[in-house]
Amino acid sequence: MTDLDAQDPLATYRDRFVGTDGPLVYLDGNSLGRPLRVTGDRLRDFVGGEWGSRLIRGWDEGWFALPEVVGDELGRTCLGAAAGQTVVGDSTTVLLYKAMRAAVALRPGRTEIVVDRDNFPTDRYVADGVARECGLRLRWIDVDTTAGVTTEQLTKVVGEQTALVVLSHVAYRSAWLADGPGLTRVAHDAGALVLWDLSHSVGSVPLALDAWDADLAVGCTYKYLNGGPGAPAFVYVARRLLDDPDRPLVQPVQGWMGASDPFLMGPTYAPAPGIRRMLSGTPPVVGMLAVQDMLALLGEVGMDAVRAKSVGLTEHAIALADELLPGTTVASPRDAGRRGGHVTLNHPLMREATAALWQRDVVPDYRDPHGLRLGLSPLSTSYDEVERGLRAVREVLDGLT
Amino acid sequence: MTDLDAQDPLATYRDRFVGTDGPLVYLDGNSLGRPLRVTGDRLRDFVGGEWGSRLIRGWDEGWFALPEVVGDELGRTCLGAAAGQTVVGDSTTVLLYKAMRAAVALRPGRTEIVVDRDNFPTDRYVADGVARECGLRLRWIDVDTTAGVTTEQLTKVVGEQTALVVLSHVAYRSAWLADGPGLTRVAHDAGALVLWDLSHSVGSVPLALDAWDADLAVGCTYKYLNGGPGAPAFVYVARRLLDDPDRPLVQPVQGWMGASDPFLMGPTYAPAPGIRRMLSGTPPVVGMLAVQDMLALLGEVGMDAVRAKSVGLTEHAIALADELLPGTTVASPRDAGRRGGHVTLNHPLMREATAALWQRDVVPDYRDPHGLRLGLSPLSTSYDEVERGLRAVREVLDGLT
Repeated sequence: MTDLDAQDPLATYRDRFVGTDGPLVYLDGNSLGRPLRVTGDRLRDFVGGEWGSRLIRGWDEGWFALPEVVGDELGRTCLGAAAGQTVVGDSTTVLLYKAMRAAVALRPGRTEIVVDRDNFPTDRYVADGVARECGLRLRWIDVDTTAGVTTEQLTKVVGEQTALVVLSHVAYRSAWLADGPGLTRVAHDAGALVLWDLSHSVGSVPLALDAWDADLAVGCTYKYLNGGPGAPAFVYVARRLLDDPDRPLVQPVQGWMGASDPFLMGPTYAPAPGIRRMLSGTPPVVGMLAVQDMLALLGEVGMDAVRAKSVGLTEHAIALADELLPGTTVASPRDAGRRGGHVTLNHPLMREATAALWQRDVVPDYRDPHGLRLGLSPLSTSYDEVERGLRAVREVLDGLT
Repeated sequence: MTDLDAQDPLATYRDRFVGTDGPLVYLDGNSLGRPLRVTGDRLRDFVGGEWGSRLIRGWDEGWFALPEVVGDELGRTCLGAAAGQTVVGDSTTVLLYKAMRAAVALRPGRTEIVVDRDNFPTDRYVADGVARECGLRLRWIDVDTTAGVTTEQLTKVVGEQTALVVLSHVAYRSAWLADGPGLTRVAHDAGALVLWDLSHSVGSVPLALDAWDADLAVGCTYKYLNGGPGAPAFVYVARRLLDDPDRPLVQPVQGWMGASDPFLMGPTYAPAPGIRRMLSGTPPVVGMLAVQDMLALLGEVGMDAVRAKSVGLTEHAIALADELLPGTTVASPRDAGRRGGHVTLNHPLMREATAALWQRDVVPDYRDPHGLRLGLSPLSTSYDEVERGLRAVREVLDGLT
């Protein structure tokens, strides 16, 4: 344990996660978070209990409402979103699709979706598909792989033809932390809507969607929300968009669970009032359980304390990189106020280095062009783990050069 | 235990399911199947093991391929589908949407989607939405709530304007078992495609999609595949449609996991070769584990034996209804060859009766207009359980009339 760990008020939370007592150095919490120890028993007990003994009655006894219940917990704990605006369900990609289709339909006559060239692939692919099928065109913002979109850049491209702006709050490569309220304001000044992808920020960076005057947001739960591989995603839609009687918000995948009365099973689809209309099929109940465990913990700790630890961890990683890795450049913002929960280090040999590190039970991630990406989950990562990781990077790079 | 249980070669499989040693009479396996006992430990072990210790490495070590691996297992065990045509992921509703959009795009110029009025609500709602957004119209087939679509009925409505026919293989109310190959042939003779919803047949009725010359199919895994509440669905697309170079099959939700090289993270989306193009977002790994447990068991028993038990159970339920419930009509086909794995019994007081049965730990389902629906999971339901259930129905109805 380092001095930094001894001084860390959140240090003991690490013990709540599986595998933190072992030798593995895990630096990829922004791809897949470690499970909480309680989650294994929780899932086993769910099978024998709620599922196995309540069976179909479980839907009346809580499962039916679970997408909204977990959505509201998420809104309160992590998103800065009042109740009734967030639901959990589907994959991030499917929710991006539904949210983009709903958004562009609210701006008829406008011809463009604005998206940056370094946005996460699935965001770009979905935007491209939605633009094509809706007769819109994509308007690209060029960004460096070490940065993200600024308000100045966005001001230059949005205009009266912009229906929707699609942005990531924290860039998946560089960890650039976008100016949420500022970019939202620029889009709104042009009459456009913004869809935020929160996948790389939720659970590590505090969010304030209502205060931003945000429109729509989507994010995943398997990174800093520790929901497990392929855990369901969430979608937020501002109440003013849900409640506007002149421009009803509709999404294209109209299924029974998004209908106003699913068990009426009537002849025609009528969307549910409020956020529930963003649902389509049967909610993934089992997939939400681990997310609930992590939300309870984040609620206990508080997102401001989580963010302080996150900044401490990324500062430490950058200081160690500067000290130990002279041939490496920091591809993430050095200003902590512009940086999310991970740090990317560039070096021409990082692809090879990543493979060698995995062999040594040191697990960072790799992203082209030549970035070692260190995802530092605030509650499960220790300063010592970061230090062991960076020292291993040094040894591996020394061996390769 | 009844004589029928004593003679049942599959009787001991019941012990493998949670809760079958208790007093609950569970007759709703076609809404949510009982979990297998192994599944609880499997999930707990997954959290501590594959997820907790392998972490992000799990994707390389098996999770990435899991939608196809489980899809192929499902194809081999239950669908009569050769490998490479089935994947698991998303909800049934989302897959219906993607499959319908893909299908109608393969029949440009045709103007109609044919669907029956008693198809499951989400199928009708999705078809309605897809028709509207694609500039098509719905052409309805009227069916009684006690029956399903016949080849004669379909012959009358399909024609050169039909792009797609959407049918359920087993009707959710009546359990009417449609003529899969016959209806497929009628649609093909008109140049149309067929999308089968297999939700109420998969795992209880043997399927032979390749032999039917089927086009597309979708189904859920939380009924007779015991995947748990909200478990992910599956989609089948015939290889000849996937491999046709002249008419490439594309679905609208183009995400990174359906792209040809997800980790290239390139500038533009190119669909993966084969069935993987039906994927969109990150596969729901945890949600597939219980399904794998049940597929292993179904593979061990064989679908023909499962079907024989299923027919035995539904015959028994109908015989008991005839004997014990004189004021009740059997709303399911009496011909076992035309009946799926459940039985619906109509009586004007069935809504009230269902509520009273639930109070007594006898759990059937209820469907309007006044049907008591008995979903008899072949491997977890005993003849004695059916008999206890029907006797309770008698007592409850006697008390209400």
